[in-house]
Amino acid sequence: MSRINRQWVVAARPEGPPRPADFDYRETAVPQPAEGELLLETRYLSLAPVMAMYMSGAPIAGRPPLEIGDVIHGRGVGRVIESRHPDYQPGDILHGQFGWQSYKVTNLPADDRFHRFTATDLPAHLALGALGMTGFSAYCGFVDVGEPEAGKPVLVSGAAGGVGHLVVQIARCLGCSPVVGIAGGPEKCALLRELGCDHALDYWAGPLDDDLARLFPDGVHLYFDNVGGEMLESVLEHLGNRARIVLCGSISEYTRDEPFGPRNYTRLRRTDASMRGFYVYNHAAGFANAEARMADWIRAGKLRPVQHIIDGFEKMPAALIGLYEGSNTGKQVVRVAAEREE
Amino acid sequence: MSRINRQWVVAARPEGPPRPADFDYRETAVPQPAEGELLLETRYLSLAPVMAMYMSGAPIAGRPPLEIGDVIHGRGVGRVIESRHPDYQPGDILHGQFGWQSYKVTNLPADDRFHRFTATDLPAHLALGALGMTGFSAYCGFVDVGEPEAGKPVLVSGAAGGVGHLVVQIARCLGCSPVVGIAGGPEKCALLRELGCDHALDYWAGPLDDDLARLFPDGVHLYFDNVGGEMLESVLEHLGNRARIVLCGSISEYTRDEPFGPRNYTRLRRTDASMRGFYVYNHAAGFANAEARMADWIRAGKLRPVQHIIDGFEKMPAALIGLYEGSNTGKQVVRVAAEREE
Repeated sequence: MSRINRQWVVAARPEGPPRPADFDYRETAVPQPAEGELLLETRYLSLAPVMAMYMSGAPIAGRPPLEIGDVIHGRGVGRVIESRHPDYQPGDILHGQFGWQSYKVTNLPADDRFHRFTATDLPAHLALGALGMTGFSAYCGFVDVGEPEAGKPVLVSGAAGGVGHLVVQIARCLGCSPVVGIAGGPEKCALLRELGCDHALDYWAGPLDDDLARLFPDGVHLYFDNVGGEMLESVLEHLGNRARIVLCGSISEYTRDEPFGPRNYTRLRRTDASMRGFYVYNHAAGFANAEARMADWIRAGKLRPVQHIIDGFEKMPAALIGLYEGSNTGKQVVRVAAEREE
Repeated sequence: MSRINRQWVVAARPEGPPRPADFDYRETAVPQPAEGELLLETRYLSLAPVMAMYMSGAPIAGRPPLEIGDVIHGRGVGRVIESRHPDYQPGDILHGQFGWQSYKVTNLPADDRFHRFTATDLPAHLALGALGMTGFSAYCGFVDVGEPEAGKPVLVSGAAGGVGHLVVQIARCLGCSPVVGIAGGPEKCALLRELGCDHALDYWAGPLDDDLARLFPDGVHLYFDNVGGEMLESVLEHLGNRARIVLCGSISEYTRDEPFGPRNYTRLRRTDASMRGFYVYNHAAGFANAEARMADWIRAGKLRPVQHIIDGFEKMPAALIGLYEGSNTGKQVVRVAAEREE
């Protein structure tokens, strides 16, 4: 039986948010794996705003940008169907660079950053959320870089997002207190309270200055920043002694014409505070530990990953377009094939 | 014998660099110390550009700004003449907030940040440089916050200045390599080479980008920043793995109309780099160790403090004005009274 590979490719470069005409659907034959290669079947594909940047020709870390006609770049999780690679067996679950297609033949090059999913008692789509790079970003960035302390306060921006909603729950699991999340709008703030945030700050409701002064009488101790921009400047005005800021993301800057520097960064001086950059792939040595601890918390009911599953590979373009339109919480994934073992 | 206190007071608020008419000379009687107080005789007074900011009405950490007629704010070193304080004896040498005057009666309030000078085999004016707050800024900022490593490269901006010229020498004493200093102009760069810098970069000669790429093939490892501004942005483009930036000063920002944030601060992310603020008074527990180690290096001839001594209390205004005109290196001090023990 020859398998058909369904693929979404770049039809045109998006200008601004992506439109349906930027995507083309294609079917091709699935090649046989050569010596050292695997044939993978895609189960779930991740959705992230950065994908439209790749389509628009922005460089992708470590490789050339996408051209018209290329399969769209995106992380996925799937099952080994055939293996001619010594380290993998049929049935193994891997996550990494699948691209927008239903099959992939690969020799697992380093740039594709494939990892084995080991928490196989849990749903495989978690490999695109709490038990994959998103979760590793939350765990390694918050725990290894941020060095949280039980009993000390934590502030998280973008707290209802893919990484942020995990960070606030990790903070709770580690006994940080109070855990304060910042998000935009009442729905996201309601989610934050459900997830255990002691306080949820809605930045749509106005400047955060009074709230930060009230909630952090000794200053902010640890700030996990997914946003950057003016929100970072606000927090810099409220730093406590030896405060730590972890720079994980800066989503506020994706839509600026000019890059923006925090004009009050010298506030780091007065309290011996630090701003620490974090790039998840520098922490590969910590991924196994992150996966194990996150999986344990999920099994114990202490951590609830918010994953929105959209059904059907044909929905990929609409789902990506939707990311730019809606008020999203947690992590969005598309189901490409059923999980037979579940 | 009643002693005469010679004083320089604020005559007018400087607009821009200070002028002679901004200073008034005054003589008053020296009061007797009350119970718990000391009478101090000023030996040397420090000069620093920030003094003109105080004269212009800028707030001074922890106290109200200077008014017209107030004695000008400034650190000094001097000898205890009379003591009604249980912890001090006549002959003890203290440094701290003397102000621009030849005597001071004080109960040593915390805000005046008095410290005992213990390296009495060395000249007391070093208490205003390598063996005082300037040296403690260099030592505690570089060693305790920067965590330098032997054999690893170090980059210092403002490297010919009061703090910077000590940092490059401490880096040499600790075996850091190469030690690279940035300064403005060929004279300062010549001084840096004399002090043991492996490379001296003259930022007057143009952008630093090519030099940084050439001298730091694995990226900058530890950057001690006295300057801020565009120079900080240049360094952010050349960060090595887990690079550390110590924010000690930002002299480039004193003359800006608008505060300036490093627009590429997100470069901290890719290499897990950090930017660490530093405020010397947070490190008081480390001052005794800093003084002892710096004094040992000076005695061993391994560290040469560059101190320019101007003779005569009457020269204070001209000396401060000169700071804004000349190309200064090291630390400027004014001798107010002879060191009798020397």
